[in-house]
Amino acid sequence: MPSPSLLQQLISALRCLPGVGAKSAQRMAYHLLERDRDGGRELSRVLAQAMESIGHCSRCRTLSESGLCRLCANPERDPTQLCIVETPADQAMIEQAIDYRGCYFVLGGHLSPLDGIGPKEIGLDHLDERFAEGEVKEIILATNPTIEGEATAQYIHDMAETRKIKTTRIAQGVPMGGELEYVDGATLAHAFRGRSEF
Amino acid sequence: MPSPSLLQQLISALRCLPGVGAKSAQRMAYHLLERDRDGGRELSRVLAQAMESIGHCSRCRTLSESGLCRLCANPERDPTQLCIVETPADQAMIEQAIDYRGCYFVLGGHLSPLDGIGPKEIGLDHLDERFAEGEVKEIILATNPTIEGEATAQYIHDMAETRKIKTTRIAQGVPMGGELEYVDGATLAHAFRGRSEF
Repeated sequence: MPSPSLLQQLISALRCLPGVGAKSAQRMAYHLLERDRDGGRELSRVLAQAMESIGHCSRCRTLSESGLCRLCANPERDPTQLCIVETPADQAMIEQAIDYRGCYFVLGGHLSPLDGIGPKEIGLDHLDERFAEGEVKEIILATNPTIEGEATAQYIHDMAETRKIKTTRIAQGVPMGGELEYVDGATLAHAFRGRSEF
Repeated sequence: MPSPSLLQQLISALRCLPGVGAKSAQRMAYHLLERDRDGGRELSRVLAQAMESIGHCSRCRTLSESGLCRLCANPERDPTQLCIVETPADQAMIEQAIDYRGCYFVLGGHLSPLDGIGPKEIGLDHLDERFAEGEVKEIILATNPTIEGEATAQYIHDMAETRKIKTTRIAQGVPMGGELEYVDGATLAHAFRGRSEF
């Protein structure tokens, strides 16, 4: 068996990307080599730099090039409101979608005792220190509406309660554009329980 | 407007990959940063090396790290048979699928006069020199079954004819596993014309 050619190495390296299988990796490799070498070079350069230089914000734990992320360093953000999300992608989604002016705390996952992920692994000791500072008046729990996300939200709610901090949870219900017929029962039950006056 | 962050640069660099839009690029960037930094570093390294070191084989024009590709350098391949394909991906597909023992010639596209792609741009001058060597006895035209691919095949057939080289074209018909009901008319017409005894 000869050692794999550089082309084969490139195809297998591309498979580290999520959602990219053997066939797409091959297509990507040929595309870059035949039609976009400059794009490939630029991707290689940015990728190396990003893997080395992007760390986590010391305050909110999101991905950041500097010790303190742009958002935490921004004096115009309201430090009394703290939105708690599972991932930096969730944070980015909220930033893009709505006009929220408070701060964030990024867990980097959810509680999952069976996988060895306890409070410390998702930075809750760090979060409790932040609560102790006394600046935070309201936390908005925006963990995913899954079993693990709910359990994590419940745990953080209990932590906040002992510090006498108000806790809110983002609403659960039928999504915009969804059709009732195709919505699952649990979602529908949430939508009924959470109904508001018209 | 502040300069884009390294994360934003990474997301936009990933969009040079075919089939990757804003949302997938974002997902890929977060995945590499949160879960697979080693994979990202390896991809960056291989990518840079591939973009610099992979060129084209001087004989068959396929992608190759060395001046002569492994296949052209292999004395066990039959030099009297020459399969002509549009892209290195087509060549790879044939190599994986069937037990062909001849050689290849990779055009790198098809004739497209409106886009300024004439015989010279797809290496036909080079192919004619190869014909002139006298070693090739049969060419197998495996260009795509599209209008442009057919026109390119016809052009190469005419070139071969003046050199008295036998030309064959891969069969066109209904694909394996396809259903007649959903096959287009042109394919069905080809399948009827090309019918063989059972």
